[in-house]
Parts: sequence; C-alpha cells; structure tokens
Amino acid sequence: MSGLNGKQLIAGKWQSAGVDAFQAICPVSGRELATKFFEATEFEIDLAATSASKAFPALANTTIEQRAALLDRIAAGLDARGEELVERCMLETAYSEQRVRGELLRTISQTKLFGEMLREGSWVEAKIDHAEPQRVPFPKPDIRSMLQPIGPIVVIGASNFPLAISVAGTDTCTALAAGCPVIVKAHPAHPGTCEMAAEVIRVSADLTGIHPGAFSFLQGPSHSVGGRLVEHPEVKAVAFTGSLEGGRALMDLASRRPAPIPVYAEMGSVNPVVVLPDAAASRTQQIAHGFVSSLTLAMGQFCTNPGLLLVPDGNAGDQLIELIKEAIKAAPAGTMLHAGIQRAFEVGLDLRQQTDSADLVHGTHGDSDIRTVTPAISIIEAEVAVSDGQINQELFGPFATIVRWKNQTDLAKVIDQLTGQLTATVHADVDEMLRYPDLIWQLRNKAGRMIVNGFPTGVEVCHAMHHGGPYPAASDPHFTSIGPTSIKRFVRPVSYQDYPKNLLPLELNDGNPLGIMRQVDGQYTRQNFENSNHLAK
Amino acid sequence: MSGLNGKQLIAGKWQSAGVDAFQAICPVSGRELATKFFEATEFEIDLAATSASKAFPALANTTIEQRAALLDRIAAGLDARGEELVERCMLETAYSEQRVRGELLRTISQTKLFGEMLREGSWVEAKIDHAEPQRVPFPKPDIRSMLQPIGPIVVIGASNFPLAISVAGTDTCTALAAGCPVIVKAHPAHPGTCEMAAEVIRVSADLTGIHPGAFSFLQGPSHSVGGRLVEHPEVKAVAFTGSLEGGRALMDLASRRPAPIPVYAEMGSVNPVVVLPDAAASRTQQIAHGFVSSLTLAMGQFCTNPGLLLVPDGNAGDQLIELIKEAIKAAPAGTMLHAGIQRAFEVGLDLRQQTDSADLVHGTHGDSDIRTVTPAISIIEAEVAVSDGQINQELFGPFATIVRWKNQTDLAKVIDQLTGQLTATVHADVDEMLRYPDLIWQLRNKAGRMIVNGFPTGVEVCHAMHHGGPYPAASDPHFTSIGPTSIKRFVRPVSYQDYPKNLLPLELNDGNPLGIMRQVDGQYTRQNFENSNHLAK
Repeated sequence: MSGLNGKQLIAGKWQSAGVDAFQAICPVSGRELATKFFEATEFEIDLAATSASKAFPALANTTIEQRAALLDRIAAGLDARGEELVERCMLETAYSEQRVRGELLRTISQTKLFGEMLREGSWVEAKIDHAEPQRVPFPKPDIRSMLQPIGPIVVIGASNFPLAISVAGTDTCTALAAGCPVIVKAHPAHPGTCEMAAEVIRVSADLTGIHPGAFSFLQGPSHSVGGRLVEHPEVKAVAFTGSLEGGRALMDLASRRPAPIPVYAEMGSVNPVVVLPDAAASRTQQIAHGFVSSLTLAMGQFCTNPGLLLVPDGNAGDQLIELIKEAIKAAPAGTMLHAGIQRAFEVGLDLRQQTDSADLVHGTHGDSDIRTVTPAISIIEAEVAVSDGQINQELFGPFATIVRWKNQTDLAKVIDQLTGQLTATVHADVDEMLRYPDLIWQLRNKAGRMIVNGFPTGVEVCHAMHHGGPYPAASDPHFTSIGPTSIKRFVRPVSYQDYPKNLLPLELNDGNPLGIMRQVDGQYTRQNFENSNHLAK
Repeated sequence: MSGLNGKQLIAGKWQSAGVDAFQAICPVSGRELATKFFEATEFEIDLAATSASKAFPALANTTIEQRAALLDRIAAGLDARGEELVERCMLETAYSEQRVRGELLRTISQTKLFGEMLREGSWVEAKIDHAEPQRVPFPKPDIRSMLQPIGPIVVIGASNFPLAISVAGTDTCTALAAGCPVIVKAHPAHPGTCEMAAEVIRVSADLTGIHPGAFSFLQGPSHSVGGRLVEHPEVKAVAFTGSLEGGRALMDLASRRPAPIPVYAEMGSVNPVVVLPDAAASRTQQIAHGFVSSLTLAMGQFCTNPGLLLVPDGNAGDQLIELIKEAIKAAPAGTMLHAGIQRAFEVGLDLRQQTDSADLVHGTHGDSDIRTVTPAISIIEAEVAVSDGQINQELFGPFATIVRWKNQTDLAKVIDQLTGQLTATVHADVDEMLRYPDLIWQLRNKAGRMIVNGFPTGVEVCHAMHHGGPYPAASDPHFTSIGPTSIKRFVRPVSYQDYPKNLLPLELNDGNPLGIMRQVDGQYTRQNFENSNHLAK
C-alpha cells in the first residue's frame, strides 16, 4: 500500500517517537506486509489525552452544523478512498470483497445518519419546566435540562469490524457528534486500514475547522497502550468492542481509578436460537438453511453469531439436525481474521471434542492450507447443557452448540443457565409462542434484542436497534453500541436553574429556534414559548 | 410509638429470626427510644433477594394502571399516617416540624407525579422502525424498542431525607413504577420512621394486588446487611444516597462481582457558589442573607449545601464577608441528625481550625447542650485553596469555606481544583456572565445543575431536574436520583425484531393504543399506524 506512514496521529500531526514497531500480517499468506507501524510511547499517549482535553471546550462549543459537516466529510472521505480501503482491508483481514464493501457502505451510511440526527436536534432530550413565582410555600424556579458532552473518549476498535466499529466507526463518530474529543487505539490486526481511516478524519476535521486535538490515533500491538489510555485522568469514558476477557480487564482498570469512568464494552454472547416443535416440523429446511448461513457468514466472526441452537426432541428435530449436519460437513474451510482468533477457535474446538458426551461434526480441512478452519457444531442433550458450564462460553468463529430438549421444563433449565445475551431468537408462529409464555419472558429478560423467525447476524443500523444486553453481553445494559442512540453513552444531562434566557443553549430557548421535540412542563411538544409560558391545549 | 414491631418485612410478612438488636436514639436527649429493632440475618437477606427475584415476572407484567394505583395508594397511605410519621420522624432526627412536614408533602407529591408519568406512558422511549422488505441488497427487518425493568433493586436510603429519599422515597417508588422489585435497607438512625413507611407499602401492595415479594424491608445498624445485598446474585442494581466513602465502598463491591452491577450513588459535593464583582457590589446584603440561610437550613444537612463560596477581593467582597461573619456569629446552635454526623462535623471543624491560614468563624455553643453544633465558616485565600486539597472535602453540616480571589486566573485555578459537583452557582447579571465565559464553561463541565442568582438547596422535583453530576458527586453522571427521570436507572432498552404484531407490548403496537409519544422511522409522533406504515406529512 502506498502512502502508509506507520505513525501516530496526535492533534493533527503524524508523528512517531517510539522505537518498537510491528507489521500487519496477511492472514491468507501468513506473511508480514511491508509497512512498519510504531507503537505509541507513554509520552505520545499522554500527549494525545491532554490534547483531547484542551480541545474539548472548542469542540463542545462548535455549532451543530459544524459537527454535522464533519460527519458528512468523513463519510465522503471514506467513499473517496473506498478502493484503497477495500484493498488494504481485504489484505489485512482475509474478508471477501463483498463483506468489506458491505461494511464500507454501512460505515458511510451510518456516519451520514448520525449527521441527520444532529441536524434534527431532538436527541438532546431538552426539557423545560417553567417557573411559578407565586407558588406557596416556596416559589418554583425555572428549570431546564439537556444533554451535553462528557469529555475525551477512548475508542478501542473491534477486530471483526475494521471499518464500521473501528477508527471512523460508530463509537468515534457518535462521540465527535456529541462534542467529545476522541483518541482511537487502532486494532493491531489491521493497522493500515486504521491509518487510512484516521487520515480521512484528520483531513475532514481540517476542512471543517474542527480543533485538531479533537481526534488522535495511536498504534500498538500490546494491551499497554489501551490500558494507559483507560487510566489517564483526562479520559472520561471508553468504548470497546471485543472479548469478554478484554472488556472485563478494562472495566476493572476503569473502576479502580481514583475517579472511576464507564467502559462501554460490547463483549459478545452465544445468541441462543430456540426452535419450537411446530416450527421445527413446518419449516425444517428453511430453519436449517438459515441457521447454517448465519453461522458460517464471514466465518462466524460476528458477536451476533448464533452459537447456541435449542432443538426439540422428536422426528422434526432429528430431521432439522440431520440437515444442519449435512450442511456443516459440506461447508467450506475459510481463513480467520488473524492467527490469534484461528488458534483460539482450534483450541476451543479441541476442548469440546474431548467432552465425551459431545457429538462433534465439522467440515474437512483442506490439507493444502494450515491457516484455515472449518465450521463445526457440537450436539448435546439438555441435561449436559445444564450441568457443564460450556454453553455460555462463546467460541468466536463458525461454531454452535446444538442442545436437544424434551419439554418446557428442560428448555427452561437450559435458558436459566444462560448469562446476558446480545440477542435471543425464537422460531415459532404466534399460537406456539403463546404456549411458551415463560420461555418468552426468560429470553426477553436475558437479551438486548428479541428476534422471531429470523437469525441474529445482520445488525440493522436504525433508531430502534439495541445492540447490547445484560452483562456479560455488554458492560452496561442501558446503552447500545450500534445505531444513532449510541450517542447517549457520551453525554450527560445538565440542568439550568433560573438561567438568563439569552444565555441558554438554543435547544432550551423558549422560542425553540431549532424546532426540536422537547418536554415542556411534562408534555412533549415542538411549541414556541417566546410569547407565552403556557402550553397550547 | 405504638405499633412498631422491630422486624424485617419479607415478601409481605413481618418476621424476625435474628438475635442482634438495636434501638433508635433521640438526637436531642441522647436517649434510646423503646422499640428494639432486629438486625436482618444472612438467611433473611437471602430470602428477601430470592423473593424479589421470584416476584419479578409478576410485577413486570402488571398493567400500567396497577402500578400507578400502587403509587397512589402509597401516597395516600403516607398521607393517612402523616401525624404518626411526623411525630416519630422528629423524634429520630431532631428535625423541626416544618422540615419534616415539608418533606412528607414532597414525598407524597413526588409519588403521585411518578404515577402520572406511568399513566402518560411516553417515558418508555418507544421506537419503531418499519420493515422494508423490498430493500436491496438485504431486506430491512421491522425493529421496535422500548424500556423494560431490569430486576430486583436494592435501595439504601439517605440519613438526611428519612421520607423522600428512604423507604417510600424516589428510589423505591421509581423502581416499583418501572416494574422492578425492591429490597430496602433501612437507615439505622431512623428505623421507626422506616418501619412505618414499609408498612404503608405492604398495605398498598396488598390492596392493589401487587405480588408481596415485590417489596421487602430489612433493618440493620452495620454495613454488612447492605454489603450482602449488593453482592447477592439476584440483585441487578443499587440505589444509594450518602457519603462518598460509603458510596465508593458499594461501587467497589459491585464492580468486583462475577457479574458487576451498577450502584447509583449520590454522594454529595461542596456545591461552589461564585460571586462576581458587580453582583457582590450591587446585591451584597441579599447574597449574604441568601447564602447564610441556605448554609444553615436544617443545620446544613443537605447534599446541596453551599460548602464553598468564592468571593472577589475588594470593598464589596470585604463587606459581603463581614455580613456573612456577623450572621454566622449570630446563628443558633442546633442538633444534628445523629451522633455520628455530629462527631464528624466537630472533627472536621477541628482539623480546619488547625490550618494556620484559615480564618475560622462560628457561633457560640450553648453550654447547656453538648449535643449541638454551631454553623461555621472558614475564610482562605485562593492560593491556599489551590495548594491544599481541602476544598473538595465536604464537611456535612452547616460549614462553608469562603475563598477570596483576585482575578479570573485566580478563580479559574480554584475551579480547576474542584472534582464533580451536584451544583454550581453563579451570582452575576447577564453582562457580567458574558465577561467570564471560561468560568461558565468550567462550571457547566463540573456540575449536574447550574444555578444563577440563587442557592443550591431546595431541589425542585420536576422533569428537567438533574440531581447528580460527574464523579464523585454521583457514581454515574447519566442519571438523576431526584425527579421522574430517575426511573431511567431501573430500565434498559430491548429491541423486538420481526416480532408478531399481536404479541408486542401495547407501547409498540402500530395502533398506539396508549397514545404515547414515540419515535417512528426517526420522527417523533403520536400517530396511529394501524392502517398505514407511513408517517403523515
């Protein structure tokens, strides 16, 4: 790739003071790619954080239009450098061209959507409670509130979404939209893709007059760069997408700080898919096909991968499992994102193979390539699922446990063992769902998203999307890491009491110059109150 | 007090298995009050938590009207038992009748307000994104989301709000409103008041058909009851109002759990009040009077007590300080809530008196009563405030540090030393505020509520109230612990993907039978979509 510099981007300048360097590895060939990337030094980490802190007032006080223009520019920049990005990303990830192009389009469109949200303006949750000076025994003051940015955010991107949940991904773009400076720690598996996206943001900030300290970007193959950032006193929150182990380590680090900060960690889950008997009988082929497609898509490298399928005992269930087995045996081998993920997958699979009770089925390794893995499933009985703790252990990649259950009690026990989940899926028609009210309640209570007659992969970027869930699916179930609502992680409400009207933010002005939806004296309205304190009835 | 039983209330039954007992102490006389209260045993703690967990599905699936009726009953019950409550509360807290009656009225009215919020219904943040089956390359699924309860909540009430932030206070009532079972750990300084309020809730739940396990109530003078509850695996969140030390201990405990849970701790602050020069000159008397009233109200036992006053150098500032000194010297002694608070106040005051540079002024102790304290102020220069770390240390009670500052640089340095605050107050007119833009930004960035030309005590219970702030004012700056919005602590969003329309919660029904404000395809509307997927333009 031409033009990669291997440096850190700190407050608008590419620089590098370090000596430790690493190279990206092509997962297909196993060979190092040319560019040397330097690991950020302690000095550079501190400089990035203090630059972010210094840029905060300037960024927070930009206009809505300025921040929306920044997002538009980022989207346009990603589009303009699309061919280069796709080429480098494929080289670093072994993803198919279709997979990478799809992710690039999603990254561009989500960035534009965040800009639309800014321009629409109602997301700030403006509330106005007018004064009642004559109230007894005490006069009621004028109280107004809205969301405002919290300060510098550290973004630690995902290995499996090198564009959409990475340097110029959801976390960075919603934080910047909120008015929070961002320091990105690049994923070491795709440092070149990351550098290109960082350069797009640098240019976009420059073109839209955004303070250069509002965005910095650091490289590093070790965990210490991320750890130091999380501990930096100027950092106010962290967004992370990755493993439970990694996420929990950051959560622990952040909670032990003198002033603890939130780590918004999306840590994945096994995403149970429950097939009820009638559905198993009436849509056997469809479910088998849909399940295997969802399981093997991009070699199962999604946090929403369906890693647990609950199939009823009986003929229909038998047939469903047979169809899945056949499809898995025929499923082609594929290259994983990087050697670490490949090894973890193989070690995990070996562990499961050693379990006597597990019936393990997988495709055949192409002898020619030691760097590929094949999709696999393990079939166990409900009693085994309840007694061994493995069903909660996500094996990142194209693997699922199939659990056979006999009756509702059986099923309830298996579900009861599950920890928090990003998604829970049910295959059933309405009548059958009505016969399993406890199951539906159990799943709704464990998951961030309920899916009916579908599969969990494919996270739609829209307002109603909640991508998160109870721990350990995510660190904080209040917040989503996908979609416009993910901006809420980076803002907090501030109340203004008896504040001079002409000094209030536009969003809290009686005249409602932005025309946003607000809660005024408890009621939702876009009304202009400039000439009246009273709501139109 | 007639009728107190000293027991635990677990799942609708007053019971007591323990042997350790304690008595309330009248702060005025120092004598023990008659009733013996038993400390909850480990078995009782576990029973309360598991009962809450078992009651969760029943409570979460009650109708809105049923939960609103519960709140109305609680409000009516508090009102009906008002005289008893006021009498016992005064005995246990040494608060004036006016103070206690005021708090009772607030408790009743806030409980009704939460019921109104439930009936209005829009607080669930319903969002609907309609499907686009024809979209290419992938069809868009139907995605809807709304807030739902998270599970059993532990409430650890405040010492200083024995009614409004205690057994039947904001935390309990918003958690129940959300559909979350509650286990209250009573404050040991007012166990009788707490027991009465718990009985009101028991009766109210009984009358409205609420599952008895939805509310339990435990006594205990030690921290171990609260600690065990926070560690209980069935508990999903904690609400706490109290000291930084206590709140941080609970946060640490909760973050070390196998599955960490949030502790919503409101831990107080020093609530800086900045007087700008023109305001000091033009409203000297008014500011002095307002400040001393706010400082000494209920013997300063508010988390919003103005513990830090920043006064400009010069004649006006001198005069302001003189007026405050005179008022403090004349301020009457008073009894504190309990001996622990009194001792901590005196120890803290002694420490400050030992600081050479501090000019300490206080009222005169009535020799007759060793159990009273007098309001006090300490006057220091800005350089001292910047160098010693004491300005961040809240001394709970009627004490404030007055810092004299020379210029904007001086002032900025002092504010920079401050940690997160519940409130920040400025005394200035618009012209003068405009001359201090950096100050306003600094304060807005540190505080949960900005007040102009007022004082921080008196937290209005309304929609736009944010009572919280950056750490250590609160554990999580996203959430308020006062007002209807405090319900958001106890709910999380859940998405429904391609869910059968007739099984959706009413809030997500196309027909919008509840008539609530929703975000449909990105737009805020109360529209009924039963016969159309399209927004009216």
